[in-house]
Amino acid sequence: MKIALAQLNYHIANFKANSKKIIAHIDKAKDKNADLVIFSELGLCGYPPQDLLEQEDFIGETEKHIEIIAKASAGIAVIIGAPVINKSKQGKKLFNAALFIDNGKVAHIQAKTHLPTYDVFDEYRYFEHNTTFDIIEFKGKRIALTICEDLWDTQPVGNSFAKDKLYTVSPMEKYSAQNPDFVINIAASPFSYNQDDNRRNILVNNAVEYAIPIIYVNQVGAQTELIFDGGSMVLNKKGKVVKNLKHFEEDFLLIDVDEIDKLTEINQAPYERIAKIYDALVLGIRDYFSKMNFRTATLGLSGGIDSAVTLAIAAEALGSENLQVLLLPSKYSSDHSIKDAIDLAHNLGVKYEIISIEKIVSAFDGSLGKLFENLQPDIAEENIQARARGVLLMALSNKFGNILLNTSNKSEAAVGYSTLYGDMNGGLSVLGDVYKTDIFKLARYINRDSEIIPENTITKPPSAELRPDQKDSDSLPDYDTLDTILFNYIELKKSSADIASLGFDLDLVMKVISMVNRNEYKRFQSPPILRVSSKAFGFGRRMPLVAKY
Amino acid sequence: MKIALAQLNYHIANFKANSKKIIAHIDKAKDKNADLVIFSELGLCGYPPQDLLEQEDFIGETEKHIEIIAKASAGIAVIIGAPVINKSKQGKKLFNAALFIDNGKVAHIQAKTHLPTYDVFDEYRYFEHNTTFDIIEFKGKRIALTICEDLWDTQPVGNSFAKDKLYTVSPMEKYSAQNPDFVINIAASPFSYNQDDNRRNILVNNAVEYAIPIIYVNQVGAQTELIFDGGSMVLNKKGKVVKNLKHFEEDFLLIDVDEIDKLTEINQAPYERIAKIYDALVLGIRDYFSKMNFRTATLGLSGGIDSAVTLAIAAEALGSENLQVLLLPSKYSSDHSIKDAIDLAHNLGVKYEIISIEKIVSAFDGSLGKLFENLQPDIAEENIQARARGVLLMALSNKFGNILLNTSNKSEAAVGYSTLYGDMNGGLSVLGDVYKTDIFKLARYINRDSEIIPENTITKPPSAELRPDQKDSDSLPDYDTLDTILFNYIELKKSSADIASLGFDLDLVMKVISMVNRNEYKRFQSPPILRVSSKAFGFGRRMPLVAKY
Repeated sequence: MKIALAQLNYHIANFKANSKKIIAHIDKAKDKNADLVIFSELGLCGYPPQDLLEQEDFIGETEKHIEIIAKASAGIAVIIGAPVINKSKQGKKLFNAALFIDNGKVAHIQAKTHLPTYDVFDEYRYFEHNTTFDIIEFKGKRIALTICEDLWDTQPVGNSFAKDKLYTVSPMEKYSAQNPDFVINIAASPFSYNQDDNRRNILVNNAVEYAIPIIYVNQVGAQTELIFDGGSMVLNKKGKVVKNLKHFEEDFLLIDVDEIDKLTEINQAPYERIAKIYDALVLGIRDYFSKMNFRTATLGLSGGIDSAVTLAIAAEALGSENLQVLLLPSKYSSDHSIKDAIDLAHNLGVKYEIISIEKIVSAFDGSLGKLFENLQPDIAEENIQARARGVLLMALSNKFGNILLNTSNKSEAAVGYSTLYGDMNGGLSVLGDVYKTDIFKLARYINRDSEIIPENTITKPPSAELRPDQKDSDSLPDYDTLDTILFNYIELKKSSADIASLGFDLDLVMKVISMVNRNEYKRFQSPPILRVSSKAFGFGRRMPLVAKY
Repeated sequence: MKIALAQLNYHIANFKANSKKIIAHIDKAKDKNADLVIFSELGLCGYPPQDLLEQEDFIGETEKHIEIIAKASAGIAVIIGAPVINKSKQGKKLFNAALFIDNGKVAHIQAKTHLPTYDVFDEYRYFEHNTTFDIIEFKGKRIALTICEDLWDTQPVGNSFAKDKLYTVSPMEKYSAQNPDFVINIAASPFSYNQDDNRRNILVNNAVEYAIPIIYVNQVGAQTELIFDGGSMVLNKKGKVVKNLKHFEEDFLLIDVDEIDKLTEINQAPYERIAKIYDALVLGIRDYFSKMNFRTATLGLSGGIDSAVTLAIAAEALGSENLQVLLLPSKYSSDHSIKDAIDLAHNLGVKYEIISIEKIVSAFDGSLGKLFENLQPDIAEENIQARARGVLLMALSNKFGNILLNTSNKSEAAVGYSTLYGDMNGGLSVLGDVYKTDIFKLARYINRDSEIIPENTITKPPSAELRPDQKDSDSLPDYDTLDTILFNYIELKKSSADIASLGFDLDLVMKVISMVNRNEYKRFQSPPILRVSSKAFGFGRRMPLVAKY
């Protein structure tokens, strides 16, 4: 039996484009004499559709396009993910389903059992759990059809009070008792830099435990914060990966299921963490723009490393000709900052303008003079500079139809070392899930073949340049220390005592944690952040604002 | 048997303050010779604790304070809501539980069965469903102990494809089979202007269907967006409300359960929708400030109705002496706008300053002159004005430690008739869940005894005053039409065709819906919005940004 794996980039709610793309790949599979072609989880509507699932006309569109796809499936079988109505009188009114379409007819609907409802996932908000486990018989083969999380009941969970199994049912136990020939898993498994390892481990464990081949079809492409990295694969019954599809690109593979156990294990090329993050961010920017129907971007270049790395990634994603950057110096900007920024723009071939913010800041200070009389300059005046820049960048964005790219990093977003309505502005945060220490590594990666980011930008001490001789280290611990504390608190959710036991001063740890907690209100108004870690700021991390902790 | 109902205002994660308050009310109940005192759902930690539930030390604090409360409970029984660890090796690792503490010991733990996971609720993100239904025997009475949603399995759900029961189990059926004497329901049921009717109907239906008295203990107080309105009550077995507690205030009631069926139905005073919204917003502001440990607020007064109503509500919540407002006229501001704003400030006794934004706007325009050469003025220049105001207001906020109150209304938030980083600034949006047509009603309500908001502010045509003779009606349908379309789309989730069938032009309906959809990206960065409707913008409405619909 020949099976085609179609790893595609969908667009949420864009039924026409999605079904057109699906049908094109059905045709391609037919051309190659495939018996079955597999698309991924909720591929028809895009993932995650969020509250669009509550709109009746959204479900109507889904049903209409299922029919269109079924009609296009004469002479082949198709597996496609879509929401379907739960016809029972009780329970949530939708299932997250895999439809098995055979020769133009929906022959089987398999609903998802495990509905991830943690981190960025909200599936129980919309879907009822599946409780039936029927094998699909097709051309003499017995297929166990599963959806993403259905294979994840053994996943590792974080806390010491949550160390056991997350789910009370095991779909694979149910299927295994019915002697399937192979497992199909359709997925919407988003990228984080350790997720491809987790994913492979889960698939390997299932293949080995149940001694069964697994055909895994993920999707690719970014949907705002979430970046799907593809990496679909085929495993034999010994848990060896015998085929894999590309990362961060659409891909298509034809495989003969009867040959799976004859194939040898693939020698997977190492994929370094920083390279993965870079590739993810490029796709994240590219898809945000194309799916929002924008082409051009703006950002502010300070001469510092965050805006430099953002610009280099944006140039890769959108093309240098689609970028328009501003240098916005103040009296506190050092000469080298301006030079470094100009050098970078030249290296990338990006057009730039220099606008001094001095007159604007003076106008603000003058207007506030009476009100602020006899008061010492403080954070208020520093923020005026950052906000003046924010206004200028947004003026460019509004005038020319560019999206402003935010250049904040995860370390400063964590501790609130940023100005709301100033440098926090932007339609998309590119680096908001990348700690400062990793941004230095990204810069080195970008420069791996030639110097694109000026060496001085990488080596000089980081500074916000909002007052004379300011350095980040005036207000913050060194970034190695800060990032380690932050990672343990945010990603690993460790307590202050546990973090201190790693070798940090407890007062320092508590100071950092308190800064993180105190700045939830700022992050509440952050642009969407491209997610590359297992715990990004944004809708995967939901913290109360009015809490005392 | 004498039972005390303690309807309290908790603070998320403030275990010390919460348990101190709980113990004070245990003592009060003892003084009154109560046999049992009831607190509300997750009262010990505050509701909703969100992802703090994933922090091990948060659970540790909970356990420590359960012990402290148990020790304080000698000689009385206590029911208190708290998260407790699920000791099973499978499933989510917490329960949302009601603890029955008898004479200093936790005698029974009843977990919640129905975990609301829709709108603003995310309970299945954290908690495992309960599956055991044991009656508590206490002093000769058989008590069915339930938690909030456990009684809501018959709740009405929204869509025509979702019209049946949301849940597959009925806790009350399970309990009823065991002949309880009465039901206790502890709740964290947030306010919306139709929620108290829904809530009473649900309780009445349960009391009638199972012919049993119900003691219902809600909480009060705001936690950022969510405002808990209290309104705890006691119903007899005929479903008549025989006692009720205050709305929007802490309250305490002692009742003899053996007397419930002898009490007569309470004659409930009518509570008008606009009065409820007003009271909710006052509490919403007051608690946001007190729980964030702030006292003073800033806002920009334009002479228009939104900022006027915001200021009047803030004055009630915080006291006029804690408000500092700015009038920020431009060359497009009309004389009457400035006069109306000054009159309002005088009426409320609020100190104000006038700062013209002219010089600042000129400085921006001058700096951008070269870049914008030969281009027509457009939204870019309009937004500069709004953003210049935003910067000045934030400067005041930063300098004096005030929270900036956002004054946007729900109609403009819906269609994006607002400037990101301009009039969208603020720590809290007071009116972001109130349609413009209701803001006029709030203004009349505020003026019910005397003219606080100048009549001219209420009667003049709404205008953003960002260009000469601008009126809202240049860009938007009249507000009666707009708000009706918006309500049907946002609250009722109707399709464009269904809305048009109410008597609107389909093109107009589609234009409005398209404006709503296109502006998700702006609302993504909105301040938290006090929720007063059944569907507020914010975390109860989750829409994808990169969607095409």
